[in-house]
Amino acid sequence: MLLANEIERQIREGAYRVGDKLPSLRELAALHQYAKNTVVAAFEILVSRGLVEPRRGSGYYVLAKPQPRRAEETDSLGRAMDIVWLMREQLKHEPGTLAVGDGFPPIEWLTDVRLDKYHQKVVRTGLGSLFRYGSRFGYPPLREQLVRKLSDFGIGVEPRQIVLTHGANEAMDMVIRYFLPPGATVLVDDPGYYPLFGKLKLAGARVFGIPRLTDGPDLEVLENLLVREKPRLFFTQSLAHNPTGSDLSRAKAFRMLQLAQKHDALIVENDPLADFKPVSATRLSSLDQLERTIYIGSFSKSFSASLRVGFIACGADLAGDLADLKTLIHVNSSEYCERTIDVILREGHYQRHLSRLRSRLGEATGKASMLLESFGAEVFAKPHQSLYLWAAFPSIDDSLRLAEELLQQKIVMAPGRIFAVDSAKISRWSRFNVGAVLDPRLGDALLTVANIARRP
Amino acid sequence: MLLANEIERQIREGAYRVGDKLPSLRELAALHQYAKNTVVAAFEILVSRGLVEPRRGSGYYVLAKPQPRRAEETDSLGRAMDIVWLMREQLKHEPGTLAVGDGFPPIEWLTDVRLDKYHQKVVRTGLGSLFRYGSRFGYPPLREQLVRKLSDFGIGVEPRQIVLTHGANEAMDMVIRYFLPPGATVLVDDPGYYPLFGKLKLAGARVFGIPRLTDGPDLEVLENLLVREKPRLFFTQSLAHNPTGSDLSRAKAFRMLQLAQKHDALIVENDPLADFKPVSATRLSSLDQLERTIYIGSFSKSFSASLRVGFIACGADLAGDLADLKTLIHVNSSEYCERTIDVILREGHYQRHLSRLRSRLGEATGKASMLLESFGAEVFAKPHQSLYLWAAFPSIDDSLRLAEELLQQKIVMAPGRIFAVDSAKISRWSRFNVGAVLDPRLGDALLTVANIARRP
Repeated sequence: MLLANEIERQIREGAYRVGDKLPSLRELAALHQYAKNTVVAAFEILVSRGLVEPRRGSGYYVLAKPQPRRAEETDSLGRAMDIVWLMREQLKHEPGTLAVGDGFPPIEWLTDVRLDKYHQKVVRTGLGSLFRYGSRFGYPPLREQLVRKLSDFGIGVEPRQIVLTHGANEAMDMVIRYFLPPGATVLVDDPGYYPLFGKLKLAGARVFGIPRLTDGPDLEVLENLLVREKPRLFFTQSLAHNPTGSDLSRAKAFRMLQLAQKHDALIVENDPLADFKPVSATRLSSLDQLERTIYIGSFSKSFSASLRVGFIACGADLAGDLADLKTLIHVNSSEYCERTIDVILREGHYQRHLSRLRSRLGEATGKASMLLESFGAEVFAKPHQSLYLWAAFPSIDDSLRLAEELLQQKIVMAPGRIFAVDSAKISRWSRFNVGAVLDPRLGDALLTVANIARRP
Repeated sequence: MLLANEIERQIREGAYRVGDKLPSLRELAALHQYAKNTVVAAFEILVSRGLVEPRRGSGYYVLAKPQPRRAEETDSLGRAMDIVWLMREQLKHEPGTLAVGDGFPPIEWLTDVRLDKYHQKVVRTGLGSLFRYGSRFGYPPLREQLVRKLSDFGIGVEPRQIVLTHGANEAMDMVIRYFLPPGATVLVDDPGYYPLFGKLKLAGARVFGIPRLTDGPDLEVLENLLVREKPRLFFTQSLAHNPTGSDLSRAKAFRMLQLAQKHDALIVENDPLADFKPVSATRLSSLDQLERTIYIGSFSKSFSASLRVGFIACGADLAGDLADLKTLIHVNSSEYCERTIDVILREGHYQRHLSRLRSRLGEATGKASMLLESFGAEVFAKPHQSLYLWAAFPSIDDSLRLAEELLQQKIVMAPGRIFAVDSAKISRWSRFNVGAVLDPRLGDALLTVANIARRP
């Protein structure tokens, strides 16, 4: 959040002192040419940082002088924190708003695997004797099930190649901490998964974006960067890519693996939406069999994010090292949560849930794509199933402005800048959740926005 | 594990090649003057690293050449991994062994708060609607309960000063990542909590040990290091200190806070055994009210380690930043686990469990101390209640040798070196779990060890 950081800097440097009143919302909006909502958000951040306090009817006052941070902190932590603000905004759920940019499937698609239904079975796994840490790799029966699941995807692994983690995000963080010393070079999809960018900045990595095309990464840019920067890792999402919704083509997958081989790079394949796609979909890991790929999986999207269970599948040596690293960081993941996931995965019911989820999603993806086009939007990729569509309106140059306008009508968008490696760069694109797009409130709101006036 | 690393180095440097047979257990034991068990453990590590494979009846063969690591990795990750080996050994539970060095209370002390008993109540908190991430600080009702719990300890906090974490170990890791850039100086108790040392090494910190005396840290060494090294943080455990069992005196607590103030250092007070001590016990955080202290709490010892719920209490600004850092690393902790802890803490039954636990522990501590002395041991500190006692036998100079001898009788010790900042330094001391000391197998085994022959 640039404005908040700017005001914080001014307070630190003495432009405003403790007790001073900050300029009004109106003044700041005019001065910086920001929408009022943006200024309100900046004030909120400063309040949450304890630097500023609101006084009823009077405005915002400086409460404390920020501590100067050490240079290293500003470099990595400071940069990473801007992304945290974005994540926070995305995680907010204000009643009455429509989250068009949302990152989850509609809750009604998930209620048939509600956590409360399986509770008695979880208890019967022997919770009564669960006091200590289990295997450092994670709960063995769940790892055995994942072996079968990955085998359905065409990825052959043994249980010792699977490490359970505290969610897929922790899996990424562990891979980063294992492979990347400060200053190391790393490649990512651009646009891509911004919580990953935050973690990389926190680690002090040099992040280069590979433009995402409709059939996968731009291989020309990839090859140039592999030659020039000699990165150790490339983080990518092959299927239902976040935010563009695009899938990797088989030919491109093969070529990517050739390039990785030639330039001695590893590919980290993040696959959070695996359950939303057919098992036969093209994955790098199923071609490569985890020689040069590290596979990261999740249950947060197809079941529940509140359990925080994810996993890494990779070569056996690396898996052993990552299990060690996990031990070092927080001793172990939660066997309590892992047993819960294990119980649910064993239910035939769960397989039916997934196949229902896939067909619902397929239907919604098609309808959402048509609806966006009927509003005059350009849709980037048209996958069979995807939680996300990436779309732009020809009359809108900066989707952040569109987001600001729609926010006033309680429509929360996910503008393209959020997902860009360089978040200062103006983007026409926004990420649309296929479930939320079908809500009539979006169409009504778009009609009121200047230049997006075509009714379907 | 020095021997495993030594063999790995030899394989890397070509002394053994892929397919070569390693020297036999007997040869290596003789060559390095190690106990056979130590050599077996080294082989196991190499197998788990995928470098070596056992062939039935024939010995161990080199399977693969280890990848050379980058310099930075060897510096931090490599150093930290030796500690992982220690952690792994401590986490092992082989049937038929007696874990005298164990880090948990005996399971029979915990069965009255077995997880299965509360499950129905957990379901009733509304698990059926739990699909997404909750507050980035953690489940609000649990934080409100912790406010009351800390208030009983004399620490006044608001809910916004509490961040729930994936266990107390993750809490430490977050504090390290927030405050310590690579190369930063940090102080720890010596002997102390070795998983903390591992995390600090992983972060590339320069770690200095403050000798732990029977009433707290050695203040002379502390002051010298504060002056000379200007560290930002001192990690310490005031109560039932791990491994020495000692408690911080009130006078020393006051003096420590004065020193921290004078030299602008923060104190991280780790309090995993809070529930095992009277609420009125002396904590730095209750004197200082989280001005210069950061308090870390856990439920792993008094309830279950399989939930992985811990917390940080600190100033509100810092709490906000740490919640952000948590978002960045793994989006959130598990609300599913947090609700479970919350349900149990609300039970009047839980309070009775704790008071029973304290009285059992008090009794066991006294008996264990007497028993160790009856075997001729010197007991370092004699707390009223502690999970651990720190003791040495006058006839034993190196407790690692004692541990090796007792291991052959299936007694697993926790020798002093594990807990030392410099693990190469010979130590007379061992950590004893007060519950396990009372098992007659320990006495029987000690009788067979040369020079420990006094029967109680």
